[in-house]
Amino acid sequence: MSELRKDLISGRWVIISTERSKRPDDFRPADGRAGTEEPRGFCPFCEGSEVKTPPEIPTTLRQPDTASDAPGWTVRVVPNKFPALNRGPSSPKMTRGIFSWTEGRGVHEVVIENPDHGLELADLPVEHIRDVLSVFQQRIRAIEAEFHYRYVQVFKNKGREAGASLSHPHSQIVATPIVPIRVKEEIYGAQRLFLGFRECAFCRIFREENSAGQRVVLRNGHFAVFAPFASRFPFEMAVFPARHSPYFTEVREDELMSLAGTLKSILGKLKDAVGDPPYNLVLHQAPNPFHSRQAWPDIDKIYHWHLEIFPILTKVAGFEWGTGFYINPVPPETAAEFLRT
Amino acid sequence: MSELRKDLISGRWVIISTERSKRPDDFRPADGRAGTEEPRGFCPFCEGSEVKTPPEIPTTLRQPDTASDAPGWTVRVVPNKFPALNRGPSSPKMTRGIFSWTEGRGVHEVVIENPDHGLELADLPVEHIRDVLSVFQQRIRAIEAEFHYRYVQVFKNKGREAGASLSHPHSQIVATPIVPIRVKEEIYGAQRLFLGFRECAFCRIFREENSAGQRVVLRNGHFAVFAPFASRFPFEMAVFPARHSPYFTEVREDELMSLAGTLKSILGKLKDAVGDPPYNLVLHQAPNPFHSRQAWPDIDKIYHWHLEIFPILTKVAGFEWGTGFYINPVPPETAAEFLRT
Repeated sequence: MSELRKDLISGRWVIISTERSKRPDDFRPADGRAGTEEPRGFCPFCEGSEVKTPPEIPTTLRQPDTASDAPGWTVRVVPNKFPALNRGPSSPKMTRGIFSWTEGRGVHEVVIENPDHGLELADLPVEHIRDVLSVFQQRIRAIEAEFHYRYVQVFKNKGREAGASLSHPHSQIVATPIVPIRVKEEIYGAQRLFLGFRECAFCRIFREENSAGQRVVLRNGHFAVFAPFASRFPFEMAVFPARHSPYFTEVREDELMSLAGTLKSILGKLKDAVGDPPYNLVLHQAPNPFHSRQAWPDIDKIYHWHLEIFPILTKVAGFEWGTGFYINPVPPETAAEFLRT
Repeated sequence: MSELRKDLISGRWVIISTERSKRPDDFRPADGRAGTEEPRGFCPFCEGSEVKTPPEIPTTLRQPDTASDAPGWTVRVVPNKFPALNRGPSSPKMTRGIFSWTEGRGVHEVVIENPDHGLELADLPVEHIRDVLSVFQQRIRAIEAEFHYRYVQVFKNKGREAGASLSHPHSQIVATPIVPIRVKEEIYGAQRLFLGFRECAFCRIFREENSAGQRVVLRNGHFAVFAPFASRFPFEMAVFPARHSPYFTEVREDELMSLAGTLKSILGKLKDAVGDPPYNLVLHQAPNPFHSRQAWPDIDKIYHWHLEIFPILTKVAGFEWGTGFYINPVPPETAAEFLRT
């Protein structure tokens, strides 16, 4: 059982993982630094290797009349074989001296985006990307039905430098029993700005960026993609929905199709124009509505789901760790112009 | 001139650097990803290449009767040739629509720790490490005399994965006109805990960790090194001084010598037992006293300088970016036991 531990000074939580645990000697370079090497020639996410993963979750999209854990799927969902957190009853917060901790209860799933090892998200037909997004929605709904999972984080790590330990295209879903500190910060920031703007801060940014135009990468009826004004990373992008909603699960069918097209376009641009860099894709949404509507009664007004996508081209180093400042050598206006054309 | 820009929602600042600026095409893999490759066979930090850096700062330690910017030094301080921030008069905060920014005023210096390319900090004699620490103190004092530099961040990136663009052993000093968000969070966290503990939270952690013992890596009269209870990374270490003080500049001569020995011991341990990993070393100290004693009148009571050292063995990925949670596969108790023996 892993442990969730709270840092006393910062209030930040960490997962001390035992399922993924390594002996200290495992980090010596001879053993493959950080254990992120994958064995060559075998991939547990490929079609035909279904028995190498834990049994799939029924949300998996399959051809009619094909059996679970066998070929015939298009988007497959499985529990992570080495989960950071384990499912189970919610656990009380406990103390050890002055320190707080709790059992590492949560959910950790993998969404295998397609059966073909060589096809990245950007390469898939728009309808297939829509299916992946639809699977995210279904899993979020199912996990949030269990009230003690307060936050569901959907993310994608593409490439070793972006933290992917397997190269077969996949995304991950982690649900935590605690609302993470960065999510809280975003909520409190949005709450504070709502008072000044008298409207959702994200709606306001959406309007301002669209009228300024110089940081707009792409626009369509349902979404706009910006290089954020204070981008931390070269070619960082934010995908904002035009329609205000705190919850990704509330995205409608037609919007989902539009989002799929938007993603295909910007991920394709990264691949073709920036040289297929490793990247992270991060969904920002409000915490589980069963919890967030109690904890922040104004959550439906102030929060606005969005996506963050950034290639890994610079390193996070001592300065960033100490200060939370980032040094970005590409102005977002330059990045947007480059990505737009 | 670079720009400091504030992210509206999170309140985080970024440096949009122009001195270091790259054209978007520079990021294509053929050009050396992220430009972090160094030309082989030449090092501007080596003895004999002094003219390749900007003119040295007089804090440089040299043999008597040797000339500036010539061989004969032991610890050399130079302005960064590609500074993230530039010196100059303080600049007011300005707005561009709903966004805040200011000119990128600040300091960016490099401390070349020794003339020999092949000698890492851990390899130097204790007296030489003490000299490096003493140079840090002198530079912090000199920079803080200019009141508009509100925070001085001292850090070391060792190895390419830790963000070092040159492999010659060096540290960096960056001063910002804004107190960084992570520093503020630490101050507010310490302030809140002071109310409950009725003493400095760092002093309390120092005592609790020493009496628990299982996360202690090293102890001596002046310092203790712990694997923090909520370590984010395998083999993360915190170096706490026994004597309460918010300011690194207040460390006394005998304490500095003891700190040098402490660093030599733990950095040597990382090198020998963990396989010479890339690492970051980050100084946490109170902001410029001219500013912090006004902004936080209780700063002298509540804040306690310390060092943070962590090898880069795992990747920060989508989950960490979205949540601020970290997944650590090595419990700090295991790490401390391994580093202790």
